[in-house]
Amino acid sequence: MRAAVLRDGRMVVRDDVPDPVPGAGQVLVDVKACGICGSDLHFAKHGDEMLAAGAQMEGLPDINAGIDLSRDIFMGHEFSAEILDAGPETETHAPGTLVTSIPALISTTGVDMIVYSNTTIGGYAEKMLLSAPLLLPIPNGLDADRAALTEPMAVGLHAVNAARIERGETALVVGCGPVGIAIIAALKQRGVENIVASDFSPARRELATTMGAHVTLDPAEDSPFHQCQPKVVFEAVGAPGIIDDVLRRAPAGSRLVVAGVCMQPDTVHPFYAITKQINIQFVFGYDPAEFANSLRAIAEGEIDVAPMITGRVELDAVGDAFTELADPDRHCKILVTP
Amino acid sequence: MRAAVLRDGRMVVRDDVPDPVPGAGQVLVDVKACGICGSDLHFAKHGDEMLAAGAQMEGLPDINAGIDLSRDIFMGHEFSAEILDAGPETETHAPGTLVTSIPALISTTGVDMIVYSNTTIGGYAEKMLLSAPLLLPIPNGLDADRAALTEPMAVGLHAVNAARIERGETALVVGCGPVGIAIIAALKQRGVENIVASDFSPARRELATTMGAHVTLDPAEDSPFHQCQPKVVFEAVGAPGIIDDVLRRAPAGSRLVVAGVCMQPDTVHPFYAITKQINIQFVFGYDPAEFANSLRAIAEGEIDVAPMITGRVELDAVGDAFTELADPDRHCKILVTP
Repeated sequence: MRAAVLRDGRMVVRDDVPDPVPGAGQVLVDVKACGICGSDLHFAKHGDEMLAAGAQMEGLPDINAGIDLSRDIFMGHEFSAEILDAGPETETHAPGTLVTSIPALISTTGVDMIVYSNTTIGGYAEKMLLSAPLLLPIPNGLDADRAALTEPMAVGLHAVNAARIERGETALVVGCGPVGIAIIAALKQRGVENIVASDFSPARRELATTMGAHVTLDPAEDSPFHQCQPKVVFEAVGAPGIIDDVLRRAPAGSRLVVAGVCMQPDTVHPFYAITKQINIQFVFGYDPAEFANSLRAIAEGEIDVAPMITGRVELDAVGDAFTELADPDRHCKILVTP
Repeated sequence: MRAAVLRDGRMVVRDDVPDPVPGAGQVLVDVKACGICGSDLHFAKHGDEMLAAGAQMEGLPDINAGIDLSRDIFMGHEFSAEILDAGPETETHAPGTLVTSIPALISTTGVDMIVYSNTTIGGYAEKMLLSAPLLLPIPNGLDADRAALTEPMAVGLHAVNAARIERGETALVVGCGPVGIAIIAALKQRGVENIVASDFSPARRELATTMGAHVTLDPAEDSPFHQCQPKVVFEAVGAPGIIDDVLRRAPAGSRLVVAGVCMQPDTVHPFYAITKQINIQFVFGYDPAEFANSLRAIAEGEIDVAPMITGRVELDAVGDAFTELADPDRHCKILVTP
């Protein structure tokens, strides 16, 4: 079968990937749509730094241990898919059922994340394996494209939950890429009454408004912190220098939620944060309940993700799509439809 | 009168400082004891960097704006003192009353912090001015030396309050200088059942045990994180590199309270904190209620600060004391007794 893989920092298509075979508790699915995540672009560019940091890190099992950047990497963790077949002794939904799942594959040897792997196939492929116990059937006749947005919207929901923000507290979202937009949608769903969004791109600012921002700001004109007094700041850029800029400018006593995934070392002035007694909550992913809530909110129309879908590509154009996503004025979420 | 001042990075004694004259709402006091704070040592060494960072910072009035490092700087903010005289139309305690106060001087033009100033005299002087509404008489016959520890112990109390730590959560205190020791004492007072303290110095580890640590560790032998699984980590060193080391090694989901005051730029790997969803609460100072609680706890014997007082010097030996404090094996808190 065909799959787009990361090879030497670029996405290339292979047509010689063996069809995966479901084991007990697993299902074989036909990928219907898979969103391209900014973290995939980050990984293509900074994968070596991320793996080095992961190897240095303690306090958590290194889920990426053993990844070999000199071999092909399967990616794609924002998927919707149709069940084709089930493994031996596996009770699950009927073939043809449209499903999604948190990106984890349970096997007899453990749990593999379906994010970056030399062996576990992700959503940038015609077929993949999923775990029967983790499957969520897609309700309400929701289409496969929108269902594929469950995962990135769960990231935004988790960031907002972690922020413990009250409705009356002003939120500033720095960066209106897919993570920032997902945060804006979750803030709106929660009823936050003053959502300010900041991005250099006019197209992204317009999408931020569509998705729930009450005010949008262009940081090229002036610092957002000169134009609003946020209680909670969501950092959704993930590039070096952003955290320190927020610490320098944010009001005393504010809370910073870091949702952007900066994979490089970064310089900060602790003095800014100390003097202003800032709280930083770093967030990552979501829990299974948040993932399920995200699907429910999309399926019930509480969050309309359609405006976020700005492109659809086949497997052979994934490499071009990675390049195109570098232009913030053209795209938010590109779906791969294998 | 005499005062020790910071001049060209060193503490020197002057005998030509005019006696301060109390204005309305102010009192003139005779300084009985004033602790030397690590932040004074930091400021003597990195004052230029701190002032530069403060000038860059937004979101808070720059309380140090206008400080001129080329002129003498008055310091000393951990004091106890005896009332000598009151300003015009000022109702206050009788002369001879032993008092302490948060280090702030209210005047008709505003509030000056009694921390670093070219004009407002601090506790490294024979006499100073305090604000009548902020005075706390020292109860229970507590002596002036112990009363001078009110301020640093309030810093520890504030850090522990900000941590919202539960009694059953393991606390790791990194660095057992005065701030770390004050945190240990506050953790013990709160009833935290597993207080782990880490410091390279045997003398500091012994003091940590005296003040309430259940376990002490020498980081030269092995990382504290290989020997305990803290839920809350208190960073009480304030040097570059410490925050990143904690982020790298701390367990997933742990909380870091940064109480050390690092005045230089610092490099961190956000990736560590993101992947482990760490929370960082930066803390600074205390509120007036915490300051009053700190005095009460010392006066009622809930916290015995006597073991922390490792030296007493006259004004002319403040410079030598600054030098001696660089050796962590010799001293915790040196009191200046003008």
